[in-house]
Amino acid sequence: MTSEKSNRVWRLAARPTGNEFDTALRLEEEATPVPQVGELLVKNRILSMDSGTRMYMTDRKDSYQPGTPLGAPILGTVIGEVAQSRHPAYAEGDLVRCYGNWADWSIATPETLYTAKLDGKEPNLAEYVGILGANGWTAYLGVVEYGAARAGETFLVSAAAGCTGSMAGQIAKIAGCRAVGLAGTDDKCTFLKNDLDFDDAINYRKGALVDSIAASCPDGINLYFDNVGGDVLDAALSNMADFGRVAVCGLLANYSAEGPVPGPYKFDLVLMKRLTVQGFFSPDFYHREPEINPVLRQWRDDGRLKLPIEETVGLENTIAAYTKLFIGANIGKVVVRV
Amino acid sequence: MTSEKSNRVWRLAARPTGNEFDTALRLEEEATPVPQVGELLVKNRILSMDSGTRMYMTDRKDSYQPGTPLGAPILGTVIGEVAQSRHPAYAEGDLVRCYGNWADWSIATPETLYTAKLDGKEPNLAEYVGILGANGWTAYLGVVEYGAARAGETFLVSAAAGCTGSMAGQIAKIAGCRAVGLAGTDDKCTFLKNDLDFDDAINYRKGALVDSIAASCPDGINLYFDNVGGDVLDAALSNMADFGRVAVCGLLANYSAEGPVPGPYKFDLVLMKRLTVQGFFSPDFYHREPEINPVLRQWRDDGRLKLPIEETVGLENTIAAYTKLFIGANIGKVVVRV
Repeated sequence: MTSEKSNRVWRLAARPTGNEFDTALRLEEEATPVPQVGELLVKNRILSMDSGTRMYMTDRKDSYQPGTPLGAPILGTVIGEVAQSRHPAYAEGDLVRCYGNWADWSIATPETLYTAKLDGKEPNLAEYVGILGANGWTAYLGVVEYGAARAGETFLVSAAAGCTGSMAGQIAKIAGCRAVGLAGTDDKCTFLKNDLDFDDAINYRKGALVDSIAASCPDGINLYFDNVGGDVLDAALSNMADFGRVAVCGLLANYSAEGPVPGPYKFDLVLMKRLTVQGFFSPDFYHREPEINPVLRQWRDDGRLKLPIEETVGLENTIAAYTKLFIGANIGKVVVRV
Repeated sequence: MTSEKSNRVWRLAARPTGNEFDTALRLEEEATPVPQVGELLVKNRILSMDSGTRMYMTDRKDSYQPGTPLGAPILGTVIGEVAQSRHPAYAEGDLVRCYGNWADWSIATPETLYTAKLDGKEPNLAEYVGILGANGWTAYLGVVEYGAARAGETFLVSAAAGCTGSMAGQIAKIAGCRAVGLAGTDDKCTFLKNDLDFDDAINYRKGALVDSIAASCPDGINLYFDNVGGDVLDAALSNMADFGRVAVCGLLANYSAEGPVPGPYKFDLVLMKRLTVQGFFSPDFYHREPEINPVLRQWRDDGRLKLPIEETVGLENTIAAYTKLFIGANIGKVVVRV
């Protein structure tokens, strides 16, 4: 079934500077991997493009897992079919979501948190890394549980046209909040307001953001869902209402940083406004998929939760797809169809 | 009862640089104030020295109340006797804690949060701004409610020899935590371990603090009670356990700052370690005094909660007393006896 040099694999050739993934990543041809006892060989169909992967390209000591060693394959969430099973609970042909490689093939270990058998009901497999995947759970729990959104509150989300951000805003609306999104182009803002029913959207590249937020959120922000950190977080902190909450989902602005990055200059406001700032991320709640996905699926089927999916075809085009996340070129979820 | 020029009042002559209170504050003699309808004239007996007052000497826009105008009297918590009452619920001779002036006399308004009639059971009036005052409530709620300390956890507190910090550590011990304190001299560390039963104490001026904390807290910090911010906060963040909590009670390191102050350089760890950082302060829970003080008083009477009180005699010596807070010269509570 497998042959020599039948697996193309993106490997980390050098630690990237900024968004220069062209020189940092290298596509190599090699032998298809062989699953050991307890493992699966997975034929990759969809690669999920996630900004967090950027952190592991830099070897940050602060990160929650070690940096990717130079020369190692890039790891990420993939969807594929089991081509060979050496685990009793899986059979050839099973559809799985797992932590695999940016490659034609992955080896998956079902004994880890990350491998899940999929129900196969979705015509578009990318849904399993979209509304029904980690971004969906992150948006859901970040708004509903960590953020404890309540009806009547003002909700702000950064990277609002991105996968997690766009869902977070819609879920905040479902929770009864007034939802405001930050995005980097007027087109994205129009999309958020017209297509996703956000109450307002602000182009953070135009004018003084702290003033734009103040104008849009005159009573202050009760819940800020942050995907980016940096200056945008400072502008949000300046506009928090007393006793507001900041759900820290991502710090995109810092992922490329090499040296020490100062925290928000408005950190004092955590005390002055008695804020709660909480970090959270999806590996902590992967096990809650069976509970969360029926809710998300229902909202989607009711037309209350939408997620555009931008699909790039061809493993060889992965860098172009991945770069989109960092230059603000995408709306919704970015995937590569292998 | 009152006469001209019978009231000495500390007024803000200039915004201080660093700890140069000598040039910033001026003691003036003036007429004793006259209470209006609904107000009390209070003969000050004890002035509570609180580091937070420093913020209002600088006119910080970020602060939770406006800066003290130049020329205005310094405001702070005082204990005194009602000399003249124009409020039906108070009589001459009543003992009160109120928000008054660093002066011989204060005008108090019972309709505000800050004015409370005291039971008079304490031979040392300073107890009402110590264990039985805002510092006590802050230590109690910061550990028990905001911080949600649980038995078996590792607890770290900065400014541990200070009023709030020393009580926070003892309350964490009562809650079953392993309590570690940060202080600025070996003598303070010895005091914390020998007199207050802290499990460990670290002189933050010696060696690399991040390493000292790591050595003392090998399993990480579950709850960090922060009074100072700045570099010490960074060193603590580097040593937090996953899902740890940071109760932000004070940011002493920033109170003298004039320009923008960077937040903690280790802010990313809020995400990486899924931390919760929560700011809180006492005006939010002044109304809970009747519920909290019986608990604190019992612990004190049982010998489980101790607080040294450093008393400076004479209103004219207020600056010397206040400066102690900023040069690390005190242990426990600092008060001025007028």
